[in-house]
This record gives sequence, C-alpha cells and structure tokens, in this order.
Amino acid sequence: MTTVIKGGTIVAADRSYEADILIEGETIKAIGPDLKGDTVIDAAGAYVMPGGIDPHTHLEMPFMGTTAAETWESGSFAALSGGTTMVVDFVIPGEDGMLAAFDAWAERSARQASGDYSFHMAVTGWSEKHFDEMEKVVARGVNTFKHFMAYKGALMVNDDEMFASFQRCAALGALPLVHAENGDIVAALQQKYMAEGRPGPESHAFSRPPEVEGEATNRAIMIADAAGVPVYIVHTSCEQAHEAIRRARQKGMRVYGEPLIQHLVLDEGEYFSKDWNYSAQRVMSPPFRNKSHQDSLWAGLAAGSLQVVATDHAAFTTAQKQFGLTDFTKIPNGTGGLEDRMPVLWTRGVETGRLTPNEFVAVTSTNIAQILNIYPQKGAILPGSDADLVVWDPTLTKTITAANQKSIIDYNVFEGIAVKGLPRYTISRGEVVWSDGQNSGPRPGRGKFIARKPFPAI
Amino acid sequence: MTTVIKGGTIVAADRSYEADILIEGETIKAIGPDLKGDTVIDAAGAYVMPGGIDPHTHLEMPFMGTTAAETWESGSFAALSGGTTMVVDFVIPGEDGMLAAFDAWAERSARQASGDYSFHMAVTGWSEKHFDEMEKVVARGVNTFKHFMAYKGALMVNDDEMFASFQRCAALGALPLVHAENGDIVAALQQKYMAEGRPGPESHAFSRPPEVEGEATNRAIMIADAAGVPVYIVHTSCEQAHEAIRRARQKGMRVYGEPLIQHLVLDEGEYFSKDWNYSAQRVMSPPFRNKSHQDSLWAGLAAGSLQVVATDHAAFTTAQKQFGLTDFTKIPNGTGGLEDRMPVLWTRGVETGRLTPNEFVAVTSTNIAQILNIYPQKGAILPGSDADLVVWDPTLTKTITAANQKSIIDYNVFEGIAVKGLPRYTISRGEVVWSDGQNSGPRPGRGKFIARKPFPAI
Amino acid sequence: MTTVIKGGTIVAADRSYEADILIEGETIKAIGPDLKGDTVIDAAGAYVMPGGIDPHTHLEMPFMGTTAAETWESGSFAALSGGTTMVVDFVIPGEDGMLAAFDAWAERSARQASGDYSFHMAVTGWSEKHFDEMEKVVARGVNTFKHFMAYKGALMVNDDEMFASFQRCAALGALPLVHAENGDIVAALQQKYMAEGRPGPESHAFSRPPEVEGEATNRAIMIADAAGVPVYIVHTSCEQAHEAIRRARQKGMRVYGEPLIQHLVLDEGEYFSKDWNYSAQRVMSPPFRNKSHQDSLWAGLAAGSLQVVATDHAAFTTAQKQFGLTDFTKIPNGTGGLEDRMPVLWTRGVETGRLTPNEFVAVTSTNIAQILNIYPQKGAILPGSDADLVVWDPTLTKTITAANQKSIIDYNVFEGIAVKGLPRYTISRGEVVWSDGQNSGPRPGRGKFIARKPFPAI
Amino acid sequence: MTTVIKGGTIVAADRSYEADILIEGETIKAIGPDLKGDTVIDAAGAYVMPGGIDPHTHLEMPFMGTTAAETWESGSFAALSGGTTMVVDFVIPGEDGMLAAFDAWAERSARQASGDYSFHMAVTGWSEKHFDEMEKVVARGVNTFKHFMAYKGALMVNDDEMFASFQRCAALGALPLVHAENGDIVAALQQKYMAEGRPGPESHAFSRPPEVEGEATNRAIMIADAAGVPVYIVHTSCEQAHEAIRRARQKGMRVYGEPLIQHLVLDEGEYFSKDWNYSAQRVMSPPFRNKSHQDSLWAGLAAGSLQVVATDHAAFTTAQKQFGLTDFTKIPNGTGGLEDRMPVLWTRGVETGRLTPNEFVAVTSTNIAQILNIYPQKGAILPGSDADLVVWDPTLTKTITAANQKSIIDYNVFEGIAVKGLPRYTISRGEVVWSDGQNSGPRPGRGKFIARKPFPAI
Ligand SMILES: [Zn+2]
Ligand SMILES: [Zn+2]
Ligand SMILES: [Zn+2]
Ligand SMILES: [Zn+2]
Ligand SMILES: [Zn+2]
Ligand SMILES: [Zn+2]
Ligand SMILES: [Zn+2]
Ligand SMILES: [Zn+2]
Repeated sequence: MTTVIKGGTIVAADRSYEADILIEGETIKAIGPDLKGDTVIDAAGAYVMPGGIDPHTHLEMPFMGTTAAETWESGSFAALSGGTTMVVDFVIPGEDGMLAAFDAWAERSARQASGDYSFHMAVTGWSEKHFDEMEKVVARGVNTFKHFMAYKGALMVNDDEMFASFQRCAALGALPLVHAENGDIVAALQQKYMAEGRPGPESHAFSRPPEVEGEATNRAIMIADAAGVPVYIVHTSCEQAHEAIRRARQKGMRVYGEPLIQHLVLDEGEYFSKDWNYSAQRVMSPPFRNKSHQDSLWAGLAAGSLQVVATDHAAFTTAQKQFGLTDFTKIPNGTGGLEDRMPVLWTRGVETGRLTPNEFVAVTSTNIAQILNIYPQKGAILPGSDADLVVWDPTLTKTITAANQKSIIDYNVFEGIAVKGLPRYTISRGEVVWSDGQNSGPRPGRGKFIARKPFPAI
Repeated sequence: MTTVIKGGTIVAADRSYEADILIEGETIKAIGPDLKGDTVIDAAGAYVMPGGIDPHTHLEMPFMGTTAAETWESGSFAALSGGTTMVVDFVIPGEDGMLAAFDAWAERSARQASGDYSFHMAVTGWSEKHFDEMEKVVARGVNTFKHFMAYKGALMVNDDEMFASFQRCAALGALPLVHAENGDIVAALQQKYMAEGRPGPESHAFSRPPEVEGEATNRAIMIADAAGVPVYIVHTSCEQAHEAIRRARQKGMRVYGEPLIQHLVLDEGEYFSKDWNYSAQRVMSPPFRNKSHQDSLWAGLAAGSLQVVATDHAAFTTAQKQFGLTDFTKIPNGTGGLEDRMPVLWTRGVETGRLTPNEFVAVTSTNIAQILNIYPQKGAILPGSDADLVVWDPTLTKTITAANQKSIIDYNVFEGIAVKGLPRYTISRGEVVWSDGQNSGPRPGRGKFIARKPFPAI
Repeated sequence: MTTVIKGGTIVAADRSYEADILIEGETIKAIGPDLKGDTVIDAAGAYVMPGGIDPHTHLEMPFMGTTAAETWESGSFAALSGGTTMVVDFVIPGEDGMLAAFDAWAERSARQASGDYSFHMAVTGWSEKHFDEMEKVVARGVNTFKHFMAYKGALMVNDDEMFASFQRCAALGALPLVHAENGDIVAALQQKYMAEGRPGPESHAFSRPPEVEGEATNRAIMIADAAGVPVYIVHTSCEQAHEAIRRARQKGMRVYGEPLIQHLVLDEGEYFSKDWNYSAQRVMSPPFRNKSHQDSLWAGLAAGSLQVVATDHAAFTTAQKQFGLTDFTKIPNGTGGLEDRMPVLWTRGVETGRLTPNEFVAVTSTNIAQILNIYPQKGAILPGSDADLVVWDPTLTKTITAANQKSIIDYNVFEGIAVKGLPRYTISRGEVVWSDGQNSGPRPGRGKFIARKPFPAI
Repeated sequence: MTTVIKGGTIVAADRSYEADILIEGETIKAIGPDLKGDTVIDAAGAYVMPGGIDPHTHLEMPFMGTTAAETWESGSFAALSGGTTMVVDFVIPGEDGMLAAFDAWAERSARQASGDYSFHMAVTGWSEKHFDEMEKVVARGVNTFKHFMAYKGALMVNDDEMFASFQRCAALGALPLVHAENGDIVAALQQKYMAEGRPGPESHAFSRPPEVEGEATNRAIMIADAAGVPVYIVHTSCEQAHEAIRRARQKGMRVYGEPLIQHLVLDEGEYFSKDWNYSAQRVMSPPFRNKSHQDSLWAGLAAGSLQVVATDHAAFTTAQKQFGLTDFTKIPNGTGGLEDRMPVLWTRGVETGRLTPNEFVAVTSTNIAQILNIYPQKGAILPGSDADLVVWDPTLTKTITAANQKSIIDYNVFEGIAVKGLPRYTISRGEVVWSDGQNSGPRPGRGKFIARKPFPAI
C-alpha cells in the first residue's frame, strides 16, 4: 500500500525543490519526479513540509490544584489539524517518583493520542533516588530533563540541585531544559502585590518582569557551563533572556532558546482588559511582554540565536481560571496554542518576510528534531524518515476562533487573528489524519511513543 | 559505469549516518546500505563528506604590479589534494571592463583547472557601464559582486559607489561581498609608518589594526541595510568585525561572515620574526591578529554568527614578496591555504571539540553552497548532487611543509603544523582525483565552470 | 559693590548644600552661611546652580542659502531667560577661511550678545591653509574643531580629511567635534525619496535613519582613536550612536556624547502632521527618532556614557522653512531650544526621578565646562568662578508657547509642554539679567567672548 | 593653631589648580594663594589630594576559624603611610546580632586606630530581629549593609533573604553592598576539586571562575532593581561582572562597581607557583584572574562604569594560611593592600596614562565619599572639609617589600613592584601622621568613628 504526494514543492530546512514523495507504509520510500503510488495526494500549488513538532506541551497535567483540561485526545488532534504531527510532553513526577509518573503519562497518551509523542522528565528535587531514576528514565527513551527555577515551594529546584542534576545529565548524555524565572523573587513579588490589594491578573505580569527571567536564564547558563553540558531554555520570552543566550553563544557555549508563538505575537496589553476572564485566560509564565521584546525574538529566529518555536500548551478552562478570582497567584498558569502555532507563525513570520519558508521548517520541526536526537526520523523529508508531513497550502485562510477549534478549551488566545497558510493535509506516519474541509476527527490510540537515544556522554 | 563508496559514515551538515553512496557518471545516484557498483571505493573507518568549497581564491591574479604565482593548474590541484573540490575566484576587471576580465579568467581556468570553479566579479568603480555590465555578468552565471573598501587609489570604492552597486545587486538578485577595511585610514597609516622610518613587514600589521576592519564592516552592513540587500563580509579576522556582524544579525539583518583558516590559527607574532622573508611571506590583509581574536572567530563558527571558512588564497613567491624589501606597502598582499584549509580546520576545530564534524561540513562546504545558490548541486550528499566528495580519514596524519606541498609556492604559512585528519580520497564529479599515498597529479582542463543563478530580485 | 544670594540651596555637580553666595563684581567672592552684601537676591526655597552652558548653537548662521533667523541679540537673551548664561557657537568658514569667519562671528556676537559666548571652529576641507589656520584659531581662544560627516557637497569632509584634522587637533591640544551622519548615504536616500515623488518633511526623517548616524559615530570614533585624540560627538540622537560611544568607552577610549533636549523629549511622530508647516518646523539633523531611543539617551545621562545636553539651536522662521515646500532637501535644517532646554530637562528629567539635581547641573553646565577647559571659571560655584548663576525655583510653572517666548522665531517645537522648574533669577557675571515676572530685556553688548586654552598637546 | 600647606598643586576630582591650604584645627579653613599659618607644610612640586578612603577592609576579622592578623593598630597606620586616611570596615555579626558586633568593632577600633574609620554592617541571615536591628544600626551611623552570596553555610544569604534586606535598605535610606559569587556553585566545585585529589591553592581559583562572579553580580543587580534600591558590588574582579554592571547602568539602573588594586595588577599566574606558601598567601575571593580582565577593569575606571578602587584588606599570616595545607578550602581567604593601594594605582594607572590625576582622586576618595554620603566632609578639599590630605610627591620611589612594610603581615602580594609616586606627608584631621623619611609611628586612639547619615528613604 503506497501513497504519492504529487505536484508540490518540498520545503526542507536546507532547501526548497519540486518533487513527489512516495510513502510506503509509515515511511518515506522515495523522493523524485513522477512517482507513482496506490493513492495520490494532491500537493499542487502547495508546500510539502515535515510535520511540525511541538516540544513543549502539558496535556492533562496536574498543576496548581487542578488538571489541565486539554486531554491527550483533544490536544493531539488539535495539533494534527494545525500541521503538528508530534508533541513532546513534560512528565512531572509526584511523590512516587519519575518512573511511576512516566507510567501514568504513558498510559494516558497511549490510550488517547492521534499523533506521535515523546516525553521530557522533570527533576523537581535532588536525592540519590533522583540520581538513580534518571538513568532508568534515559533507558526508557527520554534524553531531556526539565528544571524549574520558579514555582517556589512546588516544582522549584535551587542552584545546587540544578548543578547536581546537570552533571548527571552530562554523564548520561541527556540535555537539561530549564524554566528560567527567579522563583524567590517571583514569590516575594506575588506576596507584595497581594499585600497591596492588587489581586487581579495584571499583577501576574507585574510579579514576573523580564529581568526576573533574564536573571534566571543567565544563571542556568552559568550552571550548565560549569557542569560541562549544553542547556535548552524553554519559553524564552524577552530580550533579557535572549541577551543572556546570545552572550553565552558568543563565547562558544552550547545554549538553545525556545520562544513561544504566544510571545511572538501577543503582548502585555492583554492583561489590562476590563474583562477578568479575558485577562485570566492569558495568564501564563512567563507572561506576555511589552511589544519591543517581539522584535528581539523574531530577529533571534532569523539569526539562529533562538532555534525553536513552541507553545507551552497548558490549557485550562475559564472555570478553572476562576480559581484565582480573588487571588491572581491561584490562576492556573497556561494557555493553548498547539493548533495555531504553525498558521500563526507562517502568517506573522513568512508572509511578512521575517522568515524564509526554510527557516519556518527549521524552527517548527527540523531544529528540535536534531536537538532531541530524533532526526531524521522526524523533522526531515528524506527516504527512511517517518512520513510525518504537512501539505501546506499558502492560499488557505481562516480567522481563528474558539468556536471552531479542535481544542477542548472554551476560548483561544489568538481569537480573531486572520491567518493565511494552513494545512491542506496532515499526514502522520503515512496516514492522512487531517484534510482541510473534510470532517476529520481524532483517532485515539494511533499515536506512538517515540523513544529518543541519549547523546554520547560528555 | 558506476562507483560505490562503501563502508563509511556519511557526514553532512545536518547529521551523520552510515551508508554507502552510489555514483553514476558525475552525480550521486543513490545512498543507502549495501549498494553495488562497478568500482568500489573503500571508506571503512572514514567519514564521507561533501567536497570542500573555498569561496575565496585569487589564482594568477594580477595585483600590486605582479601576478599571484599560484596558477589555476597548481592551485586547483592543491585544493583537491586537501579535500577542496571547488574554488570560487575573484575576477578583477581592468580597463576593458567586467566582461573582458571574465573572458580572461574563463580562459585561464578552463585550460588549467582540475576541479570545478566559479567566479565572483569585483566592482571597482561606478558608472553606467558598471550598471549595465552587472546584468550581463549575472547572465553568465555570477551572482556575487565584490567591493573593496581598502586599496585606495586602486580597487577601492567609496560609500556612494558601494551603495549604488548594492542597490543594483538587490535588483539583480545578486549578493554583495565586501573586503572591509577603511582604505583612507590604512593609506594614511601606511604613510605614517613609512615616514617614521619603519618600512618592515610589522608595519603592515600596525597600519591595519582591528578597529579599521571593524569600522568598515559596520559601515558595509549599514549600507547594505539601506540598500535592502544581504551582505557577505570576506575574511572576517577580528572581534571588532565579528561584533559588528553579530550586532546586525541580532537586529534581523542578513549578514554573513567568513573567517579564514589563517586567522583562526595564526597570530600577529608572525610579523615580528627577525627573518624578513618569514614575516613578508605572512603579509596579507587583514593581517594576522592578536590571539584573543581567535576565540571570537571559533565561537562565531559554533554559534552560527560566522558561517564560512575560506583561505583568500593569493600566493606570491618569496621573490615577489621582496618587491617590498624597503617598503612594506609594496609587499604583495596574500598567503596560501587552499591545500591546508580542511586538515588544519579539522585538527584545530574538530579534534579539539570546538566544532562537531557536522559543523565542519557546514562551514567548509554546505553553508557557502547555500549562500552562493548552488546547493544541493554542491555542498550536499543527496541523490542528484554532483559527486564531489571527500573520504576523510581521521587517522591520517602529516606535518605540513612546503617541501611536500602541491602548491607552486616556495613556503607555507602553516609550515610545521601537525595535522590529524586528511583525505583518503577526493572525488570530483565522480572521478577520484586524489588518493592518499598514490601519485596523483593535476588533470588540467577537467574542471568545469559552475554557473550560479541569481536569487529572486528583492 | 557686592551682592549676596541668600537662603538657597546650592546645587553643584558634586553635592547640594545650604549656603549664601557673595558676589563681588563679576565673580564669586565667598560661599558660606550668613553672608552680607550691598544687594540681596532672595533664593529662599530655591536651588542656586551654575548658569547653564549651551555648547551647540548656530546664531545667524548662513546655511542652505539663507541665514538662521535667531540673532545673537534675541538668542542670547532667550538663553538667559531660560537659565543659560553662556553659549558656544559654531564658526563656519567660507571661502576666505577660518580667520575671516572668526572675525565675522566675533563682530556679530560682540555687538549683540547679552550673555557670554565662545566659539567652535568648523573644518570643512583640508589643505595646508587649514593646517596653518588651525594654530591661529587656537591662539584666538578656540580649542574645539567641528567636522561634518554629512551635508555632502557643502560642509562634509571625508575620512582622510578628518583623520588629518584630528591629528592636527592632537598636536594643538584641541578637541575634535563631529556631526556624525553618513553624508553619502543621506544624499543618496534624499535623491531616492525625491525620485519616488515623496517631497514632504517626513522624507527628511526617512533619509536619515538611526543606522546612518550610528555608522558615522562609530567611524568618527575609530578615526579619533587612530589619531590618538579624544572625540566629542554632537547631537547624539539614537541608540545606535550611543551604543558606538559606549562600546568605545568600554575599551578605555575617551569619547563624549551630547544628546539634545529635542531628542530627549520629541519623537518622529512630529513629521507625520498633516500641517506641512508643523512638520517642516521640526526638520533638523539628525531628525527626531522613534520613542525607544529616548530611554537610551536618558539612561546614558544617568550612567555617564553621555555627558552633555545641548540644543543645536539653529532657528529658521516658517517662511524660511517654506523654501523646501516642494523639496524636503531644501528645508533649512534646524530648530530652537535655547530658551527651553533647562526647564524642559528639569521637568522631564529631575521631576520624574531620572536625574538627580546634581546630575542636572553636571549635564547642563559642569561637564561641558570641563570638556571645554573653562572650568571652574564657568560651570562651578566656587570662590573665583564667574558669577554666572541661576536661582532655580522648582515651584514656578509655565506652559511653553511661541506666543510668549523671547526667541525671534514664530513657533516653538516644545509648544504646549507644561514645565515645572524655572529660573527665578539668572545672573551673568554678577548682574541679574533675568528676573521672573519682571520685564527683563536684552542688553546687547554686555556679553563677553570667553577664550579657551588648549589642552596639553598629546 | 593653624597650618598651611604651601606651594602645591591641589588635585581634586573635578580639577587641578595651584593654591595653598589653610588648616585650622581639624578642618580646612581656606584655600587660596599666599595663605599663612603657624606651621608650614611644604608641598612644592607635589600634588595635594584628599586623603584616600579604603571602603573595604577586614581588620581583626574573625573568619574561617581564625582572626585576620592585621590589627586596627597596624592596619590603620599602614593605611596612613600609604596616603589612606580613612577605612571602612565590615562588621560581621555573630550569634548576638548586629548591635553586639557593632560594639565589639567599635571597641577594637576606638582603642587602636590612628586614622578615621567607619563601618558597614553585614546581613548574614533574615528574621524579624534583622529587620529591627537594621534600623538601630542606621541610627548608629551606618548607611550600608553587606550581603554575601558566597560562603555557603556561613555568611551566605539566599535570594529571598537578600530581597527582603534590600527592601529594608530602601526603606531606611541605606545602600546594599554585595559580595557576588554563586555560593552554591563554588561549594560544589570545591568539593569536586577536593574529590579529584587537587587540594592545592590553584584549585581555589578553579573553583571560583569568572562566570560564577558574573552570574551573582547579575543576580544581585536584578534583585536590587526589583527592590527599587541602588546596589554596590564589592571587589568586581572580572569582565563578566563588569559587563553585568555596565548592562544595568545602560538601562538607567544605579549600580556601582569596586575593583580592587590586587585585581588591577595581579593575575592568576600567582596561583601556579611551586611554592605553596607563595600561592596560598594570594588566596582571596574572588581570586586573581586572567590578565585580559585587567583591561576591562582599567577601562571601567576611565569610563565611569566602575567607580572605586579598594583593597578588601583581610590579611592573614603565612602561618594562618597553612591551616589549608592539605585542603585549599581551609586557607583563610584574604590578602593585604591597604598600604600599597594608592602608590600602586598611581604607578600603574596615572604614570601609564590610563587615568588622569583627577580620576585617581575620584576613584580613591571622592567617589566613595559621595556614595557613602560623607562628602564633602571626606573626599574633598573644600573649606569646612576635614583636613584629611595627602601631599603626593610624584618623584618619590620605592620597591614594595614586606621587609619594610607597616603591615604586621610577613609577606606582601605586591612584593617587588617598583612604585613611583608616594605620600610626602599624610595629614589626618589637620595632623601630620606620616612624613616620608621620618620615623612616623602609629598613634592608637586618635582615629575617630565617622557616622554616616542615611539617604532619603525611597
Ligand atoms: Zn514553564
Ligand atoms: Zn511548560
Ligand atoms: Zn581582501
Ligand atoms: Zn581576497
Ligand atoms: Zn549638526
Ligand atoms: Zn549643529
Ligand atoms: Zn568578599
Ligand atoms: Zn571583603
């Protein structure tokens, strides 16, 4: 059983060219002119690109006393509908440790996911048990460990814990990831704003200023450098953090930065709505920033000092957000984006000339596949690669609205944004899982876990 | 007639993997396991990489009253022996204009070259004739125009000439290249040192300090930005120039920087030899710098703020150098490097851990192929690519010495450097043109001119 | 005949303290508690500060085919009314050379000025005559030479001329000043906008973008460094120029930057008025910038990377501005500010907490007195200093309007700005020349030329 | 009883001029030509400068299980002999809290000091008691509080403690000082080097790399910014820390940096001696750095991004150093410098042209007097100022050697350095306390405590 994608322009990270793609089973069999197959997918007038990879999601995450409402079923299908064929979700260990949490995540995802997925593991403390479990986690196909410098009293680790874990990563050939905000200062500022009688969502932004993120980014980089390991900074939202990353890279350090599509296009003005719900729906960490930071992030993607665009998809309903009605520190942190990342980035990045189509592919798929050591199984259009593909029609348009979204959530932070450039088809390991204008739906259980090998230990 | 390269690890810019390569005629036909062909090339234990591209040579260049001694015959063979399968040489127009110079270059190269080649065209003044000829030069397959901000009274163009030419490049879909040193200040400093009775080669370095290069780099970038065109800075030798490039890239400008292998490993101490010949042989522009600049350049290659390693191969004999015995300003500027670029870069870059093998491929071949718009014909190992390949044996060693070099010149600026990592075979469009330990020799006339299409006009 | 300023708080660059000031004749005789004199000036509730020095004016300057309408009589009185007791004006040599121009300037100023003044001399070309005249100009009491990198075809000098003049400055103990914009690019962009049929005042801003100023600033600094002389950049208007200055200072180079009060508070939006006159009145070089640059300039004043606030007062009437009705390149460049510099800076700088009162004194008076080598004759409140003082009442307010200004011009770029903090009295060499609420008027001829000694030659 | 200093050139931070100084009792009475007094001090051919202030000493400090051997008696006299008329010492509270420690310090100093002194108070933890005591400490004349980000398990405070204390400083009008090194990482690296069997003094340097200091500096600045208070970084030793300070100042933040004379002239090579004692004597934190950092520090003093040169005088004998013979972490941290700071800075700074004499005065005395809010009582030559003066003879020379020093210590880190420029006389509140070539000795008990008022609360 073979499929041919015919008549499109293949857009890879390194080049664009006209060719057909022959898919046999789940993988790409051949690329070239005039290929034939049992089924034909029409790509005329379209770009054929590697399926998007969103390396930063929190589906059904237990957090802040509730659970992210986006399920693996709804989330992974929303992703496919937007051209994203793989997500990497963060496993957050509870009291039973990393392996138990891994199992819980694996169970939920295996049962529900329509597209492929993989895991990062969070390191939320330090002990001999952590040391030991990390090796077992690597053996299960996870080569990335997440560290929170914020969420004091909950997920936060301090500098010596982080240093210990980073050294362990180096020994295991794993890559440390960091949520970089100074948790001590955030906690103190939160108290301050509450004490001053300012419990609204805007205080969320005030209590997490860009300097707090820049500082932590700079600190994480120093600690990684001392540990002799590269480091990946998640949700780089501001010039201060980007500056720290650039400064390190200029010294030859191996540091990666990941802006979110939200921070690229939305700004702090969102927190000043008179509608509490509207603002609370936008509460995430780091918060949206002053517009001037957006230029910095876009330039970083073009210059290569930032490498990946993600979403930090952690979607809570308005009802859940209202847990924080009288106390902004109780608003569950997180927004959606999984479904809209690629159309919004194309519209605001490629259509405006900021990014080339090849750079679009690099930052949505290829770079992260290389960073996560799953390239060219994912992130590439090469013979032997998984046939995770998107037939991208640059003439398709829509206006984003929660009313029509695949996400389970009752709002959308991109509401009203008109996008140009959407998937005509999304293909996951050879199967068409989304067709524009057709009545596609989730296919729970067809998504597979993608194990990732460690890098050579340092 | 087919050839298979068997048993090697293919190293491309984006990944490393084990596979054989099937060559049919001049191009790569297939890549995969267990390929078969009429002839077998043994790559066991070796890396198979795209042949090197040196985008900055001056073979048989008329300059400073003489002609660079390295011929197309000797130079292109020296290149092959070091793993470089293509050179891009600078056509310098004389009084008869660009087209006449193009013809002269084409004649010399076609007759002598063993490997492939292409041309950049220099713009050394500005007039309607220049405006008109540029279009014809593009039609002949040249998409890059070189501008000299130094060599006052000779090749130098001033700011409005450069701006006019850059705008013309934008309209033609061509990329401007710049030799960035402030020619006014260099000329004045040269006079000053001569007037002070300091005619030795060390005054060459003193009269071209890093600030003079940094300034011109910064200026060229501003002019390109005003013209709305990317810009490529040749022979970026110092932190000051690199800083200007980084600063521009951080703003989203499209700027490229090209360190030379010489500046990556040699320093200004070379000019303080008691042996006049020794120092004069090292006279080139920009001059070698203080060691601290080397860290900046290496970090730039790792970070992506610098993209290409070249040689500026412009080789004059010691006898020619002696034209400047009593006046350093008359020493023909230029050194060799064509033959040693790749082994020296591997030894000092990859063996030391500064660069990955993939980054090595990127900066010696793939990046410049993309920048020059000849990717993936060159710079790639893909079906359909020219079979320009090097079977790189990381265990081969030698000590560089002029006594054994293929270059025609009577000295070598890398004399005495022990390299580890050398071509076992070099293959040019399917033919083995260099085998380690065999008695390979030049094959004048087999090299072909590689035409390059313009980019879409801006 | 003595005067005592009683009851005020003396604010100097280094400290604030309560004391009276005894003036005898033209100079400060004593500072201390309970001083007595023939006349008493009431400073209760006020700050007593060194009179302001505006080091950048163009009174009655012949320029762009006309003559700046602000006369020495009106201009020097306007200055006094705003607390500025000394101006330094630019002598622009014509065909008859520097000395003849000096004489013309000296005649006009001596006849009309109410307050003290001094001169900078422009170097608008290079020849043996320039070399020789510079020494004579220094002998007449001028230790600063101005260089224009813009105004191509008129005042502009190129790099080797500038380098020659800078070296001459070094030898004479003089300080080079630079108007830093790339004149080649400005001229080309002017032609471009005119050719595109965009002759309005907004094209003035478009043809002089910040990059053009940053580039020239960077170049001037490099040339000064090569010449071994400090350099003073006039009208630093943007982050790009400030960045170049900071970068040089971080290397130990002696570089000064002078933001104008206009650039600190007005932005490019002024050029988009539907009223041609309104926008044309604001045409000056460099043009007003995007608001983001203002933060950079204010921070520079606080950090010490920028040292002086000036006005570039070059005031043309609306009728004169209309010379450029159909061609923005013919709009005489220049705006006023002499009268409003100190109140506006106090209001937007000190009242907002950006600057301390001591820093206000430093940047309006003391720093430039030191840079110009007339400290502590000017710029200080010390026994022996000229009694150039301003009794600054922080409670006085007014709304700036052309209707009430002392300047001769028919508009004011600060129209409508409400200031808080104004001179209660301005004292020039011991005489009260401005009293708030009194009917003060010009006193032509009482101003004196202040000769400035060269620095030790380098 | 009056004294006149005759015939010298007064060098202040803002200017140099020839004048006599009349001292009446302990203060400067008059400055001018031809003054007369009961006693005459000959300043012919000499510079008369404000006495030096060393704001960073640890006399008789209990630390690391021992007590700094330099006593108040020996230390304060050593200071005077080198032109330093005032020291500011750090009170380190023990279990009994700040006030008890203050008393202990006050008792020791009052009994022994020959010159004036003042105190900083260390905040080494956080509680309501700290909160309360800080106000009482301010009432006793201390407006500066020190925070250690290193010395984990001992003096170190963490981020939320520091933030709390900084906010308290803001409320009290006090200035926070910070020892900036990441204590977690230092501790972990110390363990690592010990575990690797590298117990020698060079491991001291390896375990405290510049990045660790740069990181902490950056963090302290962010926390101060969040608290809305200026911050003073002690012993800024490297480009990384200086960069963080510059970056903050460029944004308008009020941040001060204090390089030590040791870091300006000594480098890490000192730790590689084969003589354990030699290297251990040089152990201090931060350690000496690679030479490239020195350029950064000198440029910072010239540019104004660094303001003060201090010593961190904490002098332990060789016998004390030997507590760490088999474990570098037990070597008492600290070196001397009190006596040599001014001659070494003059020799390496002013004689070389890096600093002007006025800048020398600024960084050794005037700037810190302003920062500590005791200007112009100290740090100035003005009527009413304390007559703390040094008659600086630029022709006096000596070679520094422990054999001849006033310090009690048995070695000197500047041993063998030839200085040019020494005090001819040092005058403390009107008394000559040091005369070159005379047999001056300590005068225990004549030094006075200098109380410092808080700044206006923020
Ligand atoms: Zn996060
Ligand atoms: Zn997250
Ligand atoms: Zn060149
Ligand atoms: Zn060249
Ligand atoms: Zn100007
Ligand atoms: Zn001007
Ligand atoms: Zn310390
Ligand atoms: Zn200390």
